[in-house]
Parts: sequence; C-alpha cells; structure tokens
Amino acid sequence: MAESHKAIQVTGTFLDEISHDIPHQNWGEKEWDKDFEAMKSVGIDTVIMIRCGYQKWLTYDSKVLIQQEKCFSPPIDYVALFLRLSEKHGMNFYFGLYDSGKYWVSGKYKREADLNRAIADEVWQKYGPSPAFKGWYISHEINHLIPGVVDTYVKVGQHCKTISDLPVLISPYIDGTKAVPASASSLVKENGAPITQYESEWNEVFDGIKDAVDIVAFQDGHVDFEVVEDYLHVNKQLAEKYDIQCWSNCESFDRDMPIKFLPIKWEKMLMKLQAAQKVGVEKVITFEFSHFMSPNSSYIQAHHLFNRYKEYFGMDEDELTQLLQKENQGQL
Amino acid sequence: MAESHKAIQVTGTFLDEISHDIPHQNWGEKEWDKDFEAMKSVGIDTVIMIRCGYQKWLTYDSKVLIQQEKCFSPPIDYVALFLRLSEKHGMNFYFGLYDSGKYWVSGKYKREADLNRAIADEVWQKYGPSPAFKGWYISHEINHLIPGVVDTYVKVGQHCKTISDLPVLISPYIDGTKAVPASASSLVKENGAPITQYESEWNEVFDGIKDAVDIVAFQDGHVDFEVVEDYLHVNKQLAEKYDIQCWSNCESFDRDMPIKFLPIKWEKMLMKLQAAQKVGVEKVITFEFSHFMSPNSSYIQAHHLFNRYKEYFGMDEDELTQLLQKENQGQL
Amino acid sequence: MAESHKAIQVTGTFLDEISHDIPHQNWGEKEWDKDFEAMKSVGIDTVIMIRCGYQKWLTYDSKVLIQQEKCFSPPIDYVALFLRLSEKHGMNFYFGLYDSGKYWVSGKYKREADLNRAIADEVWQKYGPSPAFKGWYISHEINHLIPGVVDTYVKVGQHCKTISDLPVLISPYIDGTKAVPASASSLVKENGAPITQYESEWNEVFDGIKDAVDIVAFQDGHVDFEVVEDYLHVNKQLAEKYDIQCWSNCESFDRDMPIKFLPIKWEKMLMKLQAAQKVGVEKVITFEFSHFMSPNSSYIQAHHLFNRYKEYFGMDEDELTQLLQKENQGQL
Repeated sequence: MAESHKAIQVTGTFLDEISHDIPHQNWGEKEWDKDFEAMKSVGIDTVIMIRCGYQKWLTYDSKVLIQQEKCFSPPIDYVALFLRLSEKHGMNFYFGLYDSGKYWVSGKYKREADLNRAIADEVWQKYGPSPAFKGWYISHEINHLIPGVVDTYVKVGQHCKTISDLPVLISPYIDGTKAVPASASSLVKENGAPITQYESEWNEVFDGIKDAVDIVAFQDGHVDFEVVEDYLHVNKQLAEKYDIQCWSNCESFDRDMPIKFLPIKWEKMLMKLQAAQKVGVEKVITFEFSHFMSPNSSYIQAHHLFNRYKEYFGMDEDELTQLLQKENQGQL
Repeated sequence: MAESHKAIQVTGTFLDEISHDIPHQNWGEKEWDKDFEAMKSVGIDTVIMIRCGYQKWLTYDSKVLIQQEKCFSPPIDYVALFLRLSEKHGMNFYFGLYDSGKYWVSGKYKREADLNRAIADEVWQKYGPSPAFKGWYISHEINHLIPGVVDTYVKVGQHCKTISDLPVLISPYIDGTKAVPASASSLVKENGAPITQYESEWNEVFDGIKDAVDIVAFQDGHVDFEVVEDYLHVNKQLAEKYDIQCWSNCESFDRDMPIKFLPIKWEKMLMKLQAAQKVGVEKVITFEFSHFMSPNSSYIQAHHLFNRYKEYFGMDEDELTQLLQKENQGQL
Repeated sequence: MAESHKAIQVTGTFLDEISHDIPHQNWGEKEWDKDFEAMKSVGIDTVIMIRCGYQKWLTYDSKVLIQQEKCFSPPIDYVALFLRLSEKHGMNFYFGLYDSGKYWVSGKYKREADLNRAIADEVWQKYGPSPAFKGWYISHEINHLIPGVVDTYVKVGQHCKTISDLPVLISPYIDGTKAVPASASSLVKENGAPITQYESEWNEVFDGIKDAVDIVAFQDGHVDFEVVEDYLHVNKQLAEKYDIQCWSNCESFDRDMPIKFLPIKWEKMLMKLQAAQKVGVEKVITFEFSHFMSPNSSYIQAHHLFNRYKEYFGMDEDELTQLLQKENQGQL
C-alpha cells in the first residue's frame, strides 16, 4: 500500500444491549462467555454496555424505570451477566445510561437528566461493588451543538463522577453525508455541515462538558472515507485543548449497503484504524464486536473480518485455529 | 421477572410456501424432513401451508390455476411433500388457499371466491385421502372490516366445510402502529385505529363469519408490546361470543429493525406468549418456525432463539445436544 | 413440470469486486481459492471481475487512478489474486474496467473513456502476460439507448481489442418493471418501456457497438418472469443480426424481497435458465456465484441453492458430499 500507516488496534467494544437497530442474536450466558473469550483473544480490554434501557426495554430490573416509566422487567439481568463476565475475563466495564427515546428528543432535558441521575444512584448501589465496574457511558448521541443535551451530559456526568469517582464517556457522531436515519431509503444526504462549522460547534460542546466528561469517542462512520482523518484530527485537537481523552469509535458495520447493517469490508475498517493511528487517538473502541467482528456472530461475514483483522495484526495463528476448531465442534 | 406469567407454548407453525416477503431457503425434501423433526422435538403438532399459490407461483400443479390464471407449474409438489412429512411426523396439516394478489385487492371478490372454491374441489379430490389433511386456511389477511373479504371468507369457508367437514382457519392482523407494508422505509405509522373501533369492526366481522370459520388466529406483531395483551383480550372475548376458537399467531420475526425480517428477540416473543397465556387462547401458532426459530434456519439468530425457547420451557437438554451434533455432522 | 424445457447450465460468474450494493464477505486468498474450486466443480470456466474500481475504491494499485482520481490504494491486489487462481483452476478471466460513478452519469463521457483507455494500457502491460487473461468487460450498465455510453463502449472496446486482440463483453439490463435503484423502498415501478421500444432502442445500440463489442450478456432480473423469455428472444435476435455473441447474465439473487439482496429461490432461477436455453443463448453467466450460489457463501440459503442446482443437473453426489465434509472440517 502506498502511504501505509500502521493502524491502531481495537481494544474496546460496545455491547449492544438494548439495541436500536441491530437484530438480536438471542445469546444466553454461554454464548456471551464465549464471545468475551474471543474479544480477549484479540486484545479487547474494555466493554461498554451501550444503554441500560431504551424506551420500555431494560437490561436490569430497574425499580426507578419500572415505577416511573412503566418499563418492562427483563427476563435476565444483563448488567449482572456482563459484570460477571468482565470479572472473569479481566475486562473494564462501562455502564451505559438510559435513553428514553422521547424526553430528550422532544426537549424535556430535565426529565431525561433526572431519570438518569436516579438510575446512576440505583446502579451504583446495586452493581458498584463489582471490581469490573470502571466507568459510565452517557448514551445520548448528538452530531451538533444541542444546548439541552450538553446540559444533560454535564448534570449526569458530574453526578456519576461525584458518586463513584469513575470516568465518564460519550460517543457523538459527525454531521457528515452519511448521517441519515437507519429507516431512510437513501444512504446519503446532500449536505453535511462544513468541517469549520463542525469544529466551531464542537468547540462549544467540549467547553461545556469539560468538567463532566472524561472521554469522547466519536463514531467514525458518518463521513466519506477521504475525510475521516480530517475529522478525527479536529476531534483530537479539541480534546487536547480541553484536556479530555480522545478515543475513536470505529464502526465495524457497513453504511454503504442497502442491507442495514452487515459487517464492514475490512479495507474500509483498516483505513479508519490507520486514520485513528495517524491523528494519535488514545484508544479505539468499536460498535460492535459481537455482531460484526466476532467468530461467533450470526453474520458469517464477521468471522472472515475477524480473520482478516488478526492476519493484519499478526495475531497468533494457533489461537485462530483453536477458535475455528471449537466453532466446528458445535460451540458456535 | 416482576409479574411473570407462565407462557403458552407454540404448537403450530406456518410453512411459508409461497412467500410474500421472506427470502426462500431453497430446501429440498431432506431439509424439510429434518425441520419437521425439529418442530416435533419442541411440541409442534400442526403445520399450516400459508398459501397454495400467490399470483403466478404455485405449490402444486393446479389445473385450475394454470388454465385460468396462467400460473407457473412448480418444480416440486409442496403439498404432497408436506402431507408426506406430516404423516411421517404425526402433524396436522392445514391447506392454505390461493391469494391472487389482485382480484380481492381490487374488489373483484367474486372472482377470488370462485377460484378458491374450484381449488378446494381440486385439492380435496387430489390430497383429501391423506390422513394428515386436517383443515383449511383461507390466506387473505385483513386488519379491519372489509365486507367483500368477509363475504369471501363465508363463501370459501362454507364450501370447504361442506366438501370436507374439516375446520377452517383465518389469521387477520391488528390495525396497530406497526401495520405498514414490508416495502415501507418507516417502521411505524402515526395512527392505528383505537381499540374500541377495532373491537366494534371485528365484532361485525366475527358475526359475519361465525358459521363459515372455526378458528381465528390473529397475528400479534402489529401493535406495541404494552398493548398486545389488551388486543389479545378483545380477540378472545369476541371469539367466545361467537363460539369461534381463538388461537394466537405469534410472530417470531422482529418488526422493529431496519432489516426486514430477521428472528425476533426472545424477550419480545416471550412477552407475547405470556400475554396469550394470560388471556387464555386455545393454541399458539407462529409465523414461522423454519426461518425464525429453527436450528436449521439460514439465519443463525434463529438457532439461538430455538435454544432460548427450549431453555425457558425446560425442554430436554440431551435432545438439544443431539440436534447440535447432527448440525455439526454436516446435516445442516 | 408442464412444458418443461431442459435448462442451460451456468458456466461463468462475476467476481463482485468492487461491489456497488452487496456487502463484502471479507475473504482472503484461502477463501477465494476454495470458492474457485467450488465454481469449477459445477462447470464454471469463466470469471469476470465486475470492475477494477468504483469511485475511489480499487482492486489493484493503479497509478492512473491514484494519480488522476485520488483513488485509494487497496490492501491486496485482487487482479493478481484472481489471475493466479484462474491459472490454477483453469478459468478464463475477464477484466472489468473502471466505473467512476460520476463522469458518465453526468455526461462527461470523454473523461470516462479516456480514463478507461489509460487503465486498459496500464493493465495490459501489468497483467497481460497471464495466460488466464482472456477478455475485457466494460462495466457501465445501461437499460436504454444513451448515445454517450454507446460511444464509450465503442472507444473503450476498440482500444481493448487493438492492444490485446481479446473479446469485449458488456452486460446491460432491461428497462423492466423491476428496474428500480437498490435504495428504493418500492420493488417495482409503474411503467417499463414496451418491448417494441426496447427492441428498437437496442437495435440502435447493437448497430453502434457491433465492431467494438463481441459479447452482450443482458441481466435477466428486471422483468416479470412471464416475459423473461420474450426479452431474451429479442436479445438473441438482435445479437444474431449484428453478429455479436449472445450470453445471458442470470441473476442468482432475489429482486422480489424486502431484504436487498439474498439468494434467489431455485424455481425462479430455473425458469430463467430454461428461457435462456429455449432462445438459444451461447452461454450463461451469473451475478454472482460467491454470495448467492456458493457452498462457501455467508448466506446459508446459497448453500442450499448450490445443492438444488446440482441435483437438477445431476451433478456428482460424491463430490457434493466431499464439499460438505470440508465445510464441516472448518474450511468454511
């Protein structure tokens, strides 16, 4: 490759419970255990539960949300499961907070923040003792300056830090040409914001959140590949300016295909990991390993992506062979 | 789980030949045989061929439809195949009638009814002797009162009962927020009918069909999960009032995802089976086992749904292991 | 089957690099090698790389395209890989030219032709010595008379023939009811061109390209199944009139389903192969084996399509068994 730059490895992944738009794999504890093992085998040390609840769906039996929002009590406790597996496999677990799907999109920011602070209290009391509980993730995703959401980040982030002294992560997205809803029939829109406006808006956001948020991991999939590096560079500069850690959230699904969504072509992922390496982000996480990069995924394309990824980084072939053997012994 | 109610088991499934919108798995007799075995292993005793023909596509070499509608002669006789396997595996087979895809949607109800009565005669003569032939399914799906379709149910249903003395089944759907076409880019619509209007319209439908239809199995996927039980309750009350059997058609695919359609999250299916149990439906069937719940499905998520389903109902682990072994011996 | 006609076998396939709309399988050399073996096992002797580049994505490290179009240098050389495997497995390799995705769709035909002639020179010098290099494929797809594209076919085709003395192939599509973009939510459009207008426009196209193009392989998926044969017949008559070889490009994916795209139902493919046989096309190729018909595909429906295809043509069961055994020994 001309102008090749060594790429940075992915060392963290979201756990997509509860999912917005990716069909569920219906894994139980055995399957999740096996997948944590696969994550670990390629150097992943951090797992981020994407949200503890979305609308009425929950990952744990939250008294707060069942009483106040009439949420559904879940059949299993995913938080306990993920913490148990994080302890077993030596992972740092980040707890994703609640996305009502309604209050913050209709401007009722106070309600969204109040709910999340109550949840943080409930969760920290219930799961805080786990040695794997290492951080908080505020699950609201924005692509430009929305003062009410910035205020939500501040209120919720500061509360989490006060009760736990643990880092707070957010993962916004870029207002690029691919920032279209998953339900849209078109894959691109005509005009994204120019990068100067992007920088200016996010300068304001970073300034607002600098005391409440410790890590920002922008999603890298909403812009054309030729400008990914430019945007990652802006992100990194802003993060340094406000003394916030800059991670990159490398999307491992393909936004350019009519099927929404299947695993990304390795070449595309590699380009984004090279860009992340070049601008010097501190860490790369992905959305997400279990559907799109895992040898256990229901999407077989992901098995091959896993192999390409390992080949590129020169990971142990013997280990690869062992995993494949297990796969063929019916542990898939 | 708070307020847990034991769920009712699925004991019937559609066979999706000819499909409207689910891609074909390209199974031959061997694969179908194996899948009937898997159905039987989880207690399924009833299979309903969803339609014998749709537009020009046929499941058997129908003289009526080839002559009158210029349908295509199929490469294999699915009716004979499904009856043979139903006999072998002890299943009750329901024969799904013809959906022209045009006459009834453009108001030519008489033509649709006439064709279906001629088909019933042809089919009863040809396949009636099979001991597995246990009922008829009128394949036209409506979500509100359409007098011409009700009249079609009556004409076709009464004819089938007259020639065969076998029960007649229909499977309508609820006019809920998710009642959008599979081709729509949005997953929900703004306004479904209020439940009082639903009850009033379906009261009229039930009154109209009471002498011609023996079983009504509403699809359970077009309404929000918090109101599924309310709608199932209306269905059950109406069925009792008119002395019709009330089954529930539990959809095992996920209507909330941009990929249309992959297997449902087990939690969602479980909620619907609990609601069905609570209102006291006589039987639950699903649309459908072979794509969405089967260990043989091309969608691997279905294999996991099968396992979650078996775990919940405490089904034989040894049997599960044996099935998985077969899967890994290349009989997939 | 009534009125059965023996079908013609598929003896060629596209290799979908770079893809427009089919998610990548992330295969490396080992997986491609295995797939060429599977192709060969069912009589495929011709592979056509669908395009050497699309927009910024490349299959090989093209100086022309990297310098002039700022294309991305690819992580592996697919042209070298496919030629190597073609030599190993005795395949005829057709090289697909470049689709800018912009110049020809905005009327800058000269730019599109100039680029492609420069690429042909570069490619012929670099890869021409391979004994497997047997032809050229001009990758621009049209469904009606567009004089600028016809002129592109002529300029590029004549140039390729001059430098190499190898045949030139194109694969247009029919302006039928299914000629809608992959991103469209509807699967059909109201009005395609009448077949008489189709014949008249394509008569003009054939007249224009007769000295520059040796083979025309129309895609067979954009029209209703009942008229496929009529259209193939027109294609064949026109080809004979202008002394051009007539192949058929039998699409092996299903255009009638909301998931875009999964493998086609075998019955549909069979009908198209019967129509192709009946009108007497010289050869059938498919788009494409590796995703939609292969025992190695990430879509398991394709494995079953492969089996149905082999059963129909009475292909060696032992060989089939061996392939399945390999699959289960983890070489999938």
